[in-house]
Amino acid sequence: MPSKHVRITDVAAQAGVSIATVSHVLSGRRPVSESTRRRVQEVIDEMGYRPSAIARSMVTRRTHTVALIIPDITNPFYTAIARGLQDALTPSGYFALVVSTDGDPEIERQAVEHMIARRVDAIGFSGYYKHLRDVEPAVAAGIPVVLLGSRTPRPGVDTVFSDDVGAAALATQHLIDQGYDRIAFITGPAGQGPPSDRVAGYTETLAENGLTAQPELVVRTQFNRDGGRAGMRRLLELATRPRAVICTNDVVAIGAMDTLREAGLRCPGDVAIIGFDDIEAASLVSPPLTTVLIRAREEGAACGRLLLHRLSDDQQQPPQTVMFSATLVRRESA
Amino acid sequence: MPSKHVRITDVAAQAGVSIATVSHVLSGRRPVSESTRRRVQEVIDEMGYRPSAIARSMVTRRTHTVALIIPDITNPFYTAIARGLQDALTPSGYFALVVSTDGDPEIERQAVEHMIARRVDAIGFSGYYKHLRDVEPAVAAGIPVVLLGSRTPRPGVDTVFSDDVGAAALATQHLIDQGYDRIAFITGPAGQGPPSDRVAGYTETLAENGLTAQPELVVRTQFNRDGGRAGMRRLLELATRPRAVICTNDVVAIGAMDTLREAGLRCPGDVAIIGFDDIEAASLVSPPLTTVLIRAREEGAACGRLLLHRLSDDQQQPPQTVMFSATLVRRESA
Repeated sequence: MPSKHVRITDVAAQAGVSIATVSHVLSGRRPVSESTRRRVQEVIDEMGYRPSAIARSMVTRRTHTVALIIPDITNPFYTAIARGLQDALTPSGYFALVVSTDGDPEIERQAVEHMIARRVDAIGFSGYYKHLRDVEPAVAAGIPVVLLGSRTPRPGVDTVFSDDVGAAALATQHLIDQGYDRIAFITGPAGQGPPSDRVAGYTETLAENGLTAQPELVVRTQFNRDGGRAGMRRLLELATRPRAVICTNDVVAIGAMDTLREAGLRCPGDVAIIGFDDIEAASLVSPPLTTVLIRAREEGAACGRLLLHRLSDDQQQPPQTVMFSATLVRRESA
Repeated sequence: MPSKHVRITDVAAQAGVSIATVSHVLSGRRPVSESTRRRVQEVIDEMGYRPSAIARSMVTRRTHTVALIIPDITNPFYTAIARGLQDALTPSGYFALVVSTDGDPEIERQAVEHMIARRVDAIGFSGYYKHLRDVEPAVAAGIPVVLLGSRTPRPGVDTVFSDDVGAAALATQHLIDQGYDRIAFITGPAGQGPPSDRVAGYTETLAENGLTAQPELVVRTQFNRDGGRAGMRRLLELATRPRAVICTNDVVAIGAMDTLREAGLRCPGDVAIIGFDDIEAASLVSPPLTTVLIRAREEGAACGRLLLHRLSDDQQQPPQTVMFSATLVRRESA
C-alpha cells in the first residue's frame, strides 16, 4: 500500500502529462507550452506537492547519494570516518551508503563497479592498502573520488590522509624515551601493497636513534583483534621477546593485550603496548591503552566537504590534498 | 582511464551488436539469430569475457545489492548486524549498502525512498522504534523487507527480533536475586513509539516479585554514551538514589559508569549497572560490565538468509519470524 505522500507520478497522472514534463516545469530548463505549464502548476498547488529528494534528482540528474567504501565496518575507526562523512553530507541533503569489503581487492573492485551502476554521485574510498586501479573506472565515469588514507596525488582524485610516518615516529620515539630498545611492530598482511608508512616511520625513528630494525621484530598479521592475538603469540615465541610492541591499530593492540593476559604477562611491566587511532575502547581497556590519535571523524568530514565541493563546482580544479597530523595520547600501557 | 577488465560494452562493440543482444545471448531467454549468436559467442571466447555482477544483473534484472538501514553506525551493536548480514550475503555475491539515520523518522523515510530509487533488491530495516509506515513504499514496490528488532507481524514483511521482554526480565531478576530493590531503568527518548518491550519486561518482573516500578526511576534519554551520562546524572539528583540501574544498551551503560566515576561513586559498591547487547567494549570497561547478550551478528545473518530466500523464491509465502533468546552475561558491574 503506497504512502499518502504526494509523488511526482501522482502529479503527472492528475495533470495527464509525463513525469518528464512535470520535471521540466519544476526546473524551468526545458520549454513547456504555457497551457501545459499552467495546468501542471495548478495540480502541484492543488495536491500540495513538494519535490522530494528523488524528484529533485530527476531534475538535476543527481541521486544525492555518496558511497563510502571501507574495509571493516566492525572497526570503530572506519565507522568514525562514516560518521564524519555524514556530518558533512547531511546538511546538504546527501546520503552516505557504506560498503564494507574486508579489504579484499576483488571485493573492493566489485564495490566500485556496483556503486557506479547504482549511480552514486561520488565515492569515498578507504582500503587497508592503496589499490588505485580500483577507483579508475569511477574516475573514467566522471564520478568524483576521494581516497582516504592515501598520500599519493593522482589526476582527478582528491586525497585525505593522516601523517602516518609522523604518527609512527611519535609512537617509536615515546618508547625510546621511556628506555625501551627492543621494540617490535605488529603490522598488516604482506604482499598486498608497499610497506606501510607506519612501518617506515618506525624504521626511520629507530635509525635516527642509532637503533636497527630487526626483521624478526616486524610481524605481519590481520588488521583485527584476532590478528593482534596471533601477532603477539609469535613475538612471545622468539628466543628474546620484545619489551615493547607498536600495533598498527588499537583493535590489533587490544588483541595483543589479550595474549599477554593469557600468558600471565603484565602490561606494561613485561611488555609495553602502543596502538594507533584512539578508538573509544582504547580508554576502556585495562590498562588503558597509550595510542596515537588519528582524526578519523575529521577525515570523514573532510572527505565529505571535498566531494560536495566537486559536485557544486563543474570546473576542473587540480586535485586537493588534506593531511591531518597525529597526536600521542599517553595512558598506562606504554 | 578504464581498467583492463573486459566489459559487456567491449563485447558488444567488438561484435557490432547492442548490449541487450549480448545479454540475450548470455541468458538464452530471448531469441537471437543463430549467426548473431555465433558471432557474439566467438567474441566472448576471444576476449575472455566473463559476465560481471553488473552484467549478470542486466540479465536477471537484479542489482545484487541489499540495503541495511540502521540508526547509528558508531554503535557496535548495529555494525555487528551489518557484519552478520554480510556473512549471509557474500557467498551469494550480494553486496550490503549500509545507511545510518540517527534514528530520525524523516531520515528513515528518505532512506527507504533513496534505496528504492537506487533499485536495491531487498531492504533490512532496523530503527530505535518501529516506524512500520516507513517501509510501506518498499513493500508496495515489491521489494522484500526484513524488519529487525520488530515483533509485529505484517503482510509481506519478515521479522527478526530478540526476546526483549525476556532479556529485561533476566536483567531485573538478576538484580532482585542479588538483593536490590530500588532498581532504575535508563531508556530511550519519549514520544517516538510505544513503551519499549524492555521497560515492559522490567515492570512485569518487578511486579512478579512484589515490587512496584516507580515513575521517577524510569529515565528517558538518548541511546548513546552521552545519553547514559545524562540519565545517570538525573538519577543521582533524586532524594534517594537507586542502588542498581538497568541501561537499555551497553553504550548507555558505559556512559552511566562515566558519571559514577566522575561523582566519585563505586560500581557496583554504590550503584550496580547492567546493560544489553554485550558489545566488545562490555568486557573492556572497568569494572567489566554485566550485560544481557543480544545476538546481533546472528540477527543480521538471519535477516540476510530471509532476504535471499525471498529473492530466490517467487512464491508469495506468508511472513516469517525469527526470534533470538537472550542470555545473561555475569561480569563485575552487577
